Formats: sequence, structure tokens, C-alpha cells
Amino acid sequence: MEPFMATDIPDGAVVDIGGTKVMVGIVRAGDIVEVATFPTGELPDLAQIIAAVAAVIRRLAGQAGVQVAAVAVAVPGAIDRDAGILHRAANLPVREYPLAAELGGLLGGVPVTIEHDANLGLVGETVAGAARGLADVVYLTVSTGIGMGALTGGRLLAGSGGLAGEIGHIRVLPGGRACGCGSSGCLEAYASGRAIGALGREAAAAGLSAALAALGPDAAITAREVVAAAELGDDGCTEIVSQAVRLLGMAIDMVVRILDPAVVVLGGGVMTSEFVTKQLIAGAPGRPDQRLVRAAELGERSVMVGGTRFLRAQRGR
Amino acid sequence: MEPFMATDIPDGAVVDIGGTKVMVGIVRAGDIVEVATFPTGELPDLAQIIAAVAAVIRRLAGQAGVQVAAVAVAVPGAIDRDAGILHRAANLPVREYPLAAELGGLLGGVPVTIEHDANLGLVGETVAGAARGLADVVYLTVSTGIGMGALTGGRLLAGSGGLAGEIGHIRVLPGGRACGCGSSGCLEAYASGRAIGALGREAAAAGLSAALAALGPDAAITAREVVAAAELGDDGCTEIVSQAVRLLGMAIDMVVRILDPAVVVLGGGVMTSEFVTKQLIAGAPGRPDQRLVRAAELGERSVMVGGTRFLRAQRGR
Repeated sequence: MEPFMATDIPDGAVVDIGGTKVMVGIVRAGDIVEVATFPTGELPDLAQIIAAVAAVIRRLAGQAGVQVAAVAVAVPGAIDRDAGILHRAANLPVREYPLAAELGGLLGGVPVTIEHDANLGLVGETVAGAARGLADVVYLTVSTGIGMGALTGGRLLAGSGGLAGEIGHIRVLPGGRACGCGSSGCLEAYASGRAIGALGREAAAAGLSAALAALGPDAAITAREVVAAAELGDDGCTEIVSQAVRLLGMAIDMVVRILDPAVVVLGGGVMTSEFVTKQLIAGAPGRPDQRLVRAAELGERSVMVGGTRFLRAQRGR
Repeated sequence: MEPFMATDIPDGAVVDIGGTKVMVGIVRAGDIVEVATFPTGELPDLAQIIAAVAAVIRRLAGQAGVQVAAVAVAVPGAIDRDAGILHRAANLPVREYPLAAELGGLLGGVPVTIEHDANLGLVGETVAGAARGLADVVYLTVSTGIGMGALTGGRLLAGSGGLAGEIGHIRVLPGGRACGCGSSGCLEAYASGRAIGALGREAAAAGLSAALAALGPDAAITAREVVAAAELGDDGCTEIVSQAVRLLGMAIDMVVRILDPAVVVLGGGVMTSEFVTKQLIAGAPGRPDQRLVRAAELGERSVMVGGTRFLRAQRGR
């Protein structure tokens, strides 16, 4: 676990850019001492999101009396770590964006590290959460999209092109629903927060969910409402959530067969529902070890805590 | 690739124990200079197989004038490397067998290393075959059973309990055919050499294959006959092979999403059929890189060549 030891963490900020919201945290002496959140959806493009991030960092750092020496940013997409570029993200309107340079520039030249959100969640849970001290860990995150990070033998699984862990886009139902990635039948098209919300709106429109219909014609239906209705026994929503759980369970079983982790940690917004995680923890018959799936212990802060271990006061260190 | 550099390879023997046959090779100055093969099936248990292996090693080494200083054995199952124990193998009648100690004892105390056959095939293709010099490689072997080995960042993927790469037992068709592992619907129950042969015999018995029926009532139908008949357009056999190829293609796509290898190498007896490999290389729509799947270059010798890099003149080195 050497690369993630809590030594010499510079003061600074960690940022978690999601498909739905952005979290900003201020780090002092290795701890997150201030946090603020704002929605992604109201802002039309990533340049505006980054401008808002810079403003929030300046405001919070001022409140906390912290001199920002480094920033680590979690993004849900394909990146070039060395160049600090976000190539693309299925759930954000962006292509080839020089995120590190732009945000660093807005903060007076502070070094900015970018990393996959799932890798940061993985590191957070490994240094201080449900996988503390383990060397073979899978972190599965279900929020707006679906991501995965893995440690194998104590090292981050990267892959030949930095694209390892794209589990949201394994094809679970050939010929199925269209996915944001351009393909169809992907896990993410059924089991992500965005998909669960969309399936809920379709069920409501088709008259298949009494609970969602009762929210009224103008209600905003997201994964939160669908999971809550399923928990109360609504038929249409139970079907949607059961399908998501079944497909996520299949994906977990495959990852376990391929990587043989000591623990699979379930993180992300959708996984903050105990109703969902307890079904996944109970697991599929035939899984080698029934106890290996665990809910994240740091909840929505897994990514932020992991981010503290990626703060670098100088680029390239 | 440091661990697999061709430095200081002791003279000795490499052994590939499969579900159908056993290959023995004699190694001199890093090269395999003699090879012999005998069938697994005629011998009732692993102790007798190991006795036969020891006799063949002694005979071949005598012919080649090689002093056997080390032996490396490839096995298709779950192992304890340090203790040299084969825990179990889906396609061999064995439980908790102290393979290294037994074979070493029969050869006068020579140190014996045991390793997954897929890991040896992986290393063989990485040092001298289709994945030469690459650091992120998947080797998928389809013979009697199905196995997988992977390099990630230049290191063998092991997993928390040494069980990584159990891709033969991902569940591809829930509620499907019984598998040798005790579960059902596993990839291996449809796409392994053993399964393809069994499906061929069932098709012949049900009158669904004119080509297999034409072989006569006493013909031994194995994967070889089924693949050959499919290649000639026999309907029943085409259906069996197409199903195997489709399910193997799904598995490859999943592994590529999870591990992001630079190359996937197809090895094992079934993959010596160009008819099968060219379908898998053509690949499924939606695969990120159509060129990343390649046939093994060393054919059935991948495992033996990899084995030369696991010869250790003293245990524990």
C-alpha cells in the first residue's frame, strides 16, 4: 500500500466531478476540513463547471485559512493523467478538455492531478474504509454512471491504455437499451442512477407504477424516487430495481472470477441505499465467498478521501 | 518483463498436464530439445500420471544427455504455489495432491515448481509469441477446460487467493448446463473442448448432425470432429461451434473492458483451429479495438515455453 501512505500530504483541495453534482473539499494536514456541493446539471459546459470549482475552492480555502498548494480532481471518464486531459465522459458534455491546465491556471498555477473517480473511491476505502489495508480490492461505484477501480497486488489496475475498469459498458443484454457510450445493452443502460431514473419515468408514463404516479405529473423522478418506491413494494419500481441488482450481481460475479479480490466495495450515490446494497451483499448462488461484498464505509466521501492521497505539490512527482 | 527474462535457466524438464493429454519437454540451455506426449485418460489417477511423467522425464533426459536440475509443471486447477499442492482441477480426478513433493521425490529430490497452465501459456506467448514484450496481456486457453492468465503492468495477475482468471466459470447462461465445477451455465459448460464434444455426441444421438452420424455409431466424437464438421457446413455442428464462439466473444469483451490489455492471445487445443480463432479475431461489434485479439504463435507449445521461465534450481528462489 506504499503509494497511498499518508505521508507529506500537501494542503489543498479535492474535487469530485460527477454527472449530477460536484463536491469540493479543502484539505489541511491530510484531513478534509470543509466541504461544499453544487449541482452539475445547471451548468452548460465543463469550462463553466471548472470556473465554479475554482471559485468554491478560493472561498472555502479562505474560510479555512488554508493555502492551496495542490488540487486533485476525480472525473468520471477517460483521461490522460500525464497531460491532465479529460478525453471524454459518458455523462458530461466534454471532449479533450485540458482540465488540469485550466483549473491550475484559474488558481494561480497550482499543480492539479486528475484521476478516475472510481480509482479515488477505491483508494479512499482502502486507506480508511471497508477495504482498509488490503492489496486486492475492487471498488464498484454506481451513481449517475457506473465505474470500477481495482487494486491488484497493491497496485492500481490501469490497463494498456488507462481504460481498465470500464465495467459500465460490458454488454449484459445484447440488442438492449441504447447507452450513452453509443453502444447498446450495456450494464450502465440498466443499472446506473441515470438509467434507473429513466426507467422509472417510462414506467410512470406507461401507468406501471402507482407510487410514481402518486408523485404527480410534474414530479422529478430520479433513481432516488424509484429505489424509495421499490423499498415500499411498488410493483413497477421493484421490477426496475430487481433488474439492476440482478445485472450488477452478474457483473460482480464476473469481476470476482477474473480478479479474485479479497473484497468488493460498493460505492456511489445509488449504493448509499441499504435496500440496494443488502441485496448485492446477499449475492448470487455460486459466488465463492458470500462475505466478500461490502458497502463503502465512507459513503459519498470515499472519492474525496482517496483524493487526498493524490495531492502533489509539484507535477510529475 | 524482468521476472521472465531468459537468464540462468537451469537444465531440466517442463510438463503440461491437461485434461486430455500430458506433454513433457526436456530443457537444455533454455531451449526445449525433446518432447513426448501421452494421453491423460488411460490413467486412472494423478499419482499414476505423475509416475508416468517421472519415467518419461528420465527416459528423455537420458536420450538428450541432460542432467535434470529443476522441473516446472503446468496444471489446470487451483494450486498452492509455495507448498506445491494441487488443490483441485475440474477436469482431473484429484484433491489436495502434493504434486511438487511427489514428482520431486520420484526424480531424486529435484526441485519442482507448479503453476497454472494458463499463466505458463501467457508467459510463453509474452517472451516468444504473439504478445512479445508487452506488459498488459490476456491469454485465453480453450482445451479440455477453459483458463485465463493475465499480465497487468508486467506482473502476473494472481488475486487475493491465487484464483484470478477463473473465466471458465463465469455464468453465461443462468440456469443452463451443469458444469464440472458443480455450478451450472458456466462458460466452460458450452465452449470448452469437453463441452463441444459432449454437445456433438448429443446432437448425433438426436439426429441433428448428418456429418457426425456419417462417422458411424462407434466413432469417438470429440471437439475436433465437431469443429471439422462445422467447418464443412454441417448444421448441428455449426450451431454448437457458433454458440461457443459467441459466448467466448462475450467473455473476451468483458475481460477487455475490465483489464484493458494490449493483446488477447487465444491458446489451447481448440484454438489451434483457424476456423474458430478467425471468428473470435473478427470479434463482436462494439469491441474497442478490432485488432487486439490474436492467435497464439507457439501453438500447443506456449505452455512449455512459458514453463522454461519457471524452472528454479532451488525452491523459493
